[in-house]
Amino acid sequence: MIAGIELGGTKTVVATGTGEGAVTEEWRFPTTTPEETFSRATGWLRERGTPSAIGVAAFGPLGVVPRHGNYGKLLATPKPGWADYSIIGALHEAFPGAQVTIETDVNAAALAEARIGAASGMEDVAYITIGTGIGAGILSGGHLIHGTLHPEFGHLKVPRKPDDHFAGVCPFHADCLEGLASGPSMAARWGKPAHELPPDHPAWNTEAWYLAHGALSLVGIVAPERVIIGGGVSQAEGFHEKVETLLNEIAAGYFAPIQHKPYIVAPHLEQQAGIIGALLLTAR
Amino acid sequence: MIAGIELGGTKTVVATGTGEGAVTEEWRFPTTTPEETFSRATGWLRERGTPSAIGVAAFGPLGVVPRHGNYGKLLATPKPGWADYSIIGALHEAFPGAQVTIETDVNAAALAEARIGAASGMEDVAYITIGTGIGAGILSGGHLIHGTLHPEFGHLKVPRKPDDHFAGVCPFHADCLEGLASGPSMAARWGKPAHELPPDHPAWNTEAWYLAHGALSLVGIVAPERVIIGGGVSQAEGFHEKVETLLNEIAAGYFAPIQHKPYIVAPHLEQQAGIIGALLLTAR
Repeated sequence: MIAGIELGGTKTVVATGTGEGAVTEEWRFPTTTPEETFSRATGWLRERGTPSAIGVAAFGPLGVVPRHGNYGKLLATPKPGWADYSIIGALHEAFPGAQVTIETDVNAAALAEARIGAASGMEDVAYITIGTGIGAGILSGGHLIHGTLHPEFGHLKVPRKPDDHFAGVCPFHADCLEGLASGPSMAARWGKPAHELPPDHPAWNTEAWYLAHGALSLVGIVAPERVIIGGGVSQAEGFHEKVETLLNEIAAGYFAPIQHKPYIVAPHLEQQAGIIGALLLTAR
Repeated sequence: MIAGIELGGTKTVVATGTGEGAVTEEWRFPTTTPEETFSRATGWLRERGTPSAIGVAAFGPLGVVPRHGNYGKLLATPKPGWADYSIIGALHEAFPGAQVTIETDVNAAALAEARIGAASGMEDVAYITIGTGIGAGILSGGHLIHGTLHPEFGHLKVPRKPDDHFAGVCPFHADCLEGLASGPSMAARWGKPAHELPPDHPAWNTEAWYLAHGALSLVGIVAPERVIIGGGVSQAEGFHEKVETLLNEIAAGYFAPIQHKPYIVAPHLEQQAGIIGALLLTAR
């Protein structure tokens, strides 16, 4: 039996399925304390059998480098009770024989979209999510990128849009992507949340400017074959086309990868990407 | 016998040695036409034996993704006679039994510095070189990053230093790293080449600003454990410390990787990095 667990800040999904990402059965429930959440997930799995492999896609910050001592542990998260919780410890205790693989939620989503979603069959894929924060998962040459902790794509510095004097909402950085383009940033900048701004509102040109610059940094550093932009703030009609148009303008014909069309796309797997990614992790 | 070839725009180095990067014997000669250059390199090797593996570190643009049809070929280089030349074809013809591995010069240098140089033993390392252009080689989780063609780090957009109104020298992009901080950019901006500017010249603060922003993008996307800055324009006294200080200022305590000290360092292997990297490629 193959199992997947998607641990989100507010909800958890547990599933049985295959290492190719097919979900057989799944259960969604609210994330509470770590002990209760994992006891419910492992209890549900135990009723179905004994997993030989479990893939986990989790919120962070998270130790994701197998050779590091903090692998499979939540790090300094502000979420009460979760800092230092060992996901891998809980799963090894419940299922001692299972092989456990743990990844960030964005990397799992990138993997899922690259295997059976919007970038199907590609080995170099970036997945950007825009919501309360901004994050990116990256598959590079078939490998998920971790770096020495894990990347913080949202805090990349981006050139300001000319005449944009909005201060930004990041408490750390005046001009970072998250401060200038996250959901809370849009709400603070325009006085209403992103989903209430119509597709022809100038907000979307500003948003596309910053995402195009974030995407250009990805192109310059990891040269993905396709960039997927998901998350609640990406759903305005025509948004992905706007980002692609702007990216082509600022790239000025220079970067070969963005000649793949379409280059900036919406995710295909939507809410399923995390749990599908978790299942796919078991086959790596 | 293990062989390495470093193919540069002006000089070529051919060596025998080990897959651990030890050079037994090497020969440097000017790069001329592709046929003459490879005939000299393979002739020199043949006098010493028959290599079982050959690693090549080459200038670009270069096909470096083994699954792509252009692997081991020079792409649209302006260097006369070299566009479309198949390095791998020439080496397979000369030594049909040899396993040939080809990488960009910056990736080979990153690998060499990560194995036996300034980032010895690290698996997540970036190597930036500043000269006529700006490039970066990246080792991520032990894998060299290629992306779908190869990254163009030099053309990353960076926020302008406040009050910097220099137009930049890149014909494609107003505000890219290479346009604002390459060797030709320094010469155009300050009226003399970088090596004539004393270490206390304000030029180095400007240069460090742009390199710190370039490094921050690497931190946000691939989170290296250490960033090496080499190349002719990086050699002013105290330059690496300046970049590290500025990087810490703009990161504002946010990024865990840069808490490794020292974080921004000079290369250790200098002119040898390319040929050592070429030899190391044979063991991958």
